[in-house]
Amino acid sequence: VYRMHCATSCDYDVVFTRDVLDPSNRLLAEAVDSRPALIITDRTVHGLLGDRLRAYTEAMHAPVGVLALDLTEHTKTMATVLEICARAEALGLGRRDPLVALGGGICSDVVSVAASLMRRGVPYIAVPTTLIGQVDAGIALKGGVNFSGTKNYLGCFTPPKRVLIDTGFLTSVPRGELSGGFAEIVKMALILDDELFEAVALSGPELIRSGLSAPEGVGETIVKRAVELMLDQLGENCYEDRTLKRLVDFGHTFSPRLEELSGYRLRHGEAVAVDMALTCALATELGAFGEHELETVITTLRSLALPVHSPVCTRAAIDEAIESTTKHRDGTLNLVIPTGIGHATFVDRASDIPAAAVDAALERVTAAAMTSDTSAQLLV
Amino acid sequence: VYRMHCATSCDYDVVFTRDVLDPSNRLLAEAVDSRPALIITDRTVHGLLGDRLRAYTEAMHAPVGVLALDLTEHTKTMATVLEICARAEALGLGRRDPLVALGGGICSDVVSVAASLMRRGVPYIAVPTTLIGQVDAGIALKGGVNFSGTKNYLGCFTPPKRVLIDTGFLTSVPRGELSGGFAEIVKMALILDDELFEAVALSGPELIRSGLSAPEGVGETIVKRAVELMLDQLGENCYEDRTLKRLVDFGHTFSPRLEELSGYRLRHGEAVAVDMALTCALATELGAFGEHELETVITTLRSLALPVHSPVCTRAAIDEAIESTTKHRDGTLNLVIPTGIGHATFVDRASDIPAAAVDAALERVTAAAMTSDTSAQLLV
Repeated sequence: VYRMHCATSCDYDVVFTRDVLDPSNRLLAEAVDSRPALIITDRTVHGLLGDRLRAYTEAMHAPVGVLALDLTEHTKTMATVLEICARAEALGLGRRDPLVALGGGICSDVVSVAASLMRRGVPYIAVPTTLIGQVDAGIALKGGVNFSGTKNYLGCFTPPKRVLIDTGFLTSVPRGELSGGFAEIVKMALILDDELFEAVALSGPELIRSGLSAPEGVGETIVKRAVELMLDQLGENCYEDRTLKRLVDFGHTFSPRLEELSGYRLRHGEAVAVDMALTCALATELGAFGEHELETVITTLRSLALPVHSPVCTRAAIDEAIESTTKHRDGTLNLVIPTGIGHATFVDRASDIPAAAVDAALERVTAAAMTSDTSAQLLV
Repeated sequence: VYRMHCATSCDYDVVFTRDVLDPSNRLLAEAVDSRPALIITDRTVHGLLGDRLRAYTEAMHAPVGVLALDLTEHTKTMATVLEICARAEALGLGRRDPLVALGGGICSDVVSVAASLMRRGVPYIAVPTTLIGQVDAGIALKGGVNFSGTKNYLGCFTPPKRVLIDTGFLTSVPRGELSGGFAEIVKMALILDDELFEAVALSGPELIRSGLSAPEGVGETIVKRAVELMLDQLGENCYEDRTLKRLVDFGHTFSPRLEELSGYRLRHGEAVAVDMALTCALATELGAFGEHELETVITTLRSLALPVHSPVCTRAAIDEAIESTTKHRDGTLNLVIPTGIGHATFVDRASDIPAAAVDAALERVTAAAMTSDTSAQLLV
C-alpha cells in the first residue's frame, strides 16, 4: 500500500464595493492582475452594462475579451460551458488567466464549471449582478449545469479567486429577480437569524420596489449579513465532503424537482419560496414550528411577491423530490425544518415523516395560496 | 471584505494485488463497498476480461453496471465523458456511488473527468490494466480530454478513492503498450533514481518480451519503485497550485504537440520518449548532461523499442511546443533537463536556450534515429 497525502485549502475574499465598473474603481482590474482574461456575461446584462464594461476593459491594459451569452436554465448546459472554453482557447488564455462571471446565478454556474475544466482549473472571478448571485450562487463554490433532465446534475466545487459585490447593480434588475434573491435571504434568516428575518419582513417590500436603494443603507446591511451567514455555513464543509447535513439546504429539497417539472418557468427563488412554505407547514404538522410562526413566514414570503405554492407542487412531485434528494444526499433525506424563526433542525429520513403530515402541509399551502394577496399584488 | 477559509486534503492508497478480478479477491468489492457502481472499460480490455469481470460483478451483491467504450485519443472527448455520465444517471447512481476505471490511461482520463462532474463529484476508483496506467495516468489525480485540437485542454484534478494495481494484467497487453509504460518509468528514473534506471536498462527488454513476467519479481519491483517515486513527487503539490515547476513534467514539454501533430498516431509513451531524447540532447548541448550519459539514454530507449525521434518533431513543432507549454505553465517554460542519470534541474525560460543548441540537439536525435537499431528490431 502506497499512500498519497496532500493538504490544500480553500480561501477567498468577498469584497463589497460600489461602481465596480467605473474605471477609477481598480478592484476588478486588480483581481484580473493585468492578465489576458475573458469576461462572460448575460446578453441582458450586456445590454444594460455593455458601454460601461467596454470603458472599463479599455482601461485595463490587458487583452480582455467579452462574451455575451443567452443564459437561461435551458442553456445552462455543457454545450454553453464548451462555448466559453472554446472562446477562451481562441483568445489564448494561459494557466493562470482568469474567467470573470458578470451576471446572475446562471452566469456564475456555467463560468465556474468552465473555469474548473480549462487546463484543469483557471482562476474564476465572480461579479454577481443580481441579488440571488450576491447572497447565494455568486459567492459560493458550486457550479452546475443541467443534464439529462436533472437540474445541476453535472458541476463542480470551484472556489472563486475573488468575489466583488456592488449592490448598485440591483437598481436595474427586474423586481421578480429581487424577490427571488429575497427567497435566499429568508432562507438564511429562517435557519439562523431572527433579527435578519425581522429586517426583511419590515423593509423587504420597499427594498424590492426601490431596487434596494431605500430605505437608505438597509439593503446593503441585509446583503452583508446574508453573505456573512452563508460563508460561515460553507466554511467548514465547503466541498461537502465532511457531511451532507447542511442547514443551507433548507428550501432546496423539493425546489429542484419543482423547477424541472415546471420546465424552468418557476424560477429558482420562486421554487425555493414554495419549498420553504411547504417545509414550514410540514414542520408545523410535525409539531416543530408554531402556527403563528408559519403564518409569519407565509405573510412575509407573500409580501416579497413570492409564491407559497405552485400547481407543479403535487404529492407525486414531493415524493419524487424526496427520492432524488435522498439519492443526492447519499441515502438520507436530511430535510431541514425550522424549529422557530432563526433555528432549524434535520429530519433525517423520509420514513420519519407520516404521509398524513405531508398531505396536511400541502393542504395548508394550497389554502394559503388561494387567499387574496394584497401585498404581492401591490408589488407586481 | 469577508473571507472564506476551508482546509481540505487529498489522501488515497495505491494497493498492489494479484488476480484482482478473481471473485475471492475482495479488494475491488471492498472499494465499491456494496454500492451501486458503474465500471467503465475499454472495448479491447472488455474483449479480454469480459468473462472474468462478469463473474466478479455477479459476486459483488450490488447493482454494478459495465460500460465498454471505444477509447482512443480521438474519442477522449467531452462527448465520451457525457456518455459515461448519462449511463450513470440512467443506472440511478447516487452521491457516493463510485465509477470504476478498468483500463489504460485514456480510460482513467475520461472516467475521472466524469466522476468529477457528476453531482459535483462522485468517488472514482482506478484499476489500471496497462503499464502506463499503473505507473502514471492511473495512479495520479489528473483527468483530461482533448478539446479544440489541444491535448488535455479540459480536465480535472480528481483524487481516486482507491487504486488497485495488478501487474498480472500486463501479460496480455501489446508490447508497444509496455514500451510506452517504460517511457514513463525511464522518465522517473532519469530525474530521480539512477538505480531504477540501471534496472530498466538491464531487464527492460526481457520484461517487455515476457509481459513483465520475467525475470521473476523484477517487473513488480520496478513498477512499485516507479509508483513510490511518482506519489512522492505529487504529494506536496498534487493540485499544482503551489508551483508549476514539476520534475515529473520531464518528457512532457514537447510531447503533447508531437502527439497532436501526428494525429495521435504517435502514442503517448512514444512521444514522451522522443521528447526525452531531444531534451537530453539539448541538456548535452547546454553542457549539463554528458555525452556518454546521452548515449546511454538513447541506447536504453531504443532497447525498449521506443523511438528517439519522429518526423513530426521539427524545429517548428519544437517552437510551437515551447509556446503552448509556456502558456500552460503560466509564462515560464520550466523545461526539466537531466544533469546526470537520476538528477535534473529546470531551464526556466525559452530565452535561456540558444537557438543553435536546439538545432544541434535536433541533429543529434535525427542522427541517432537513423543508425540501425538491432535491439528494437529484436523486440518487434
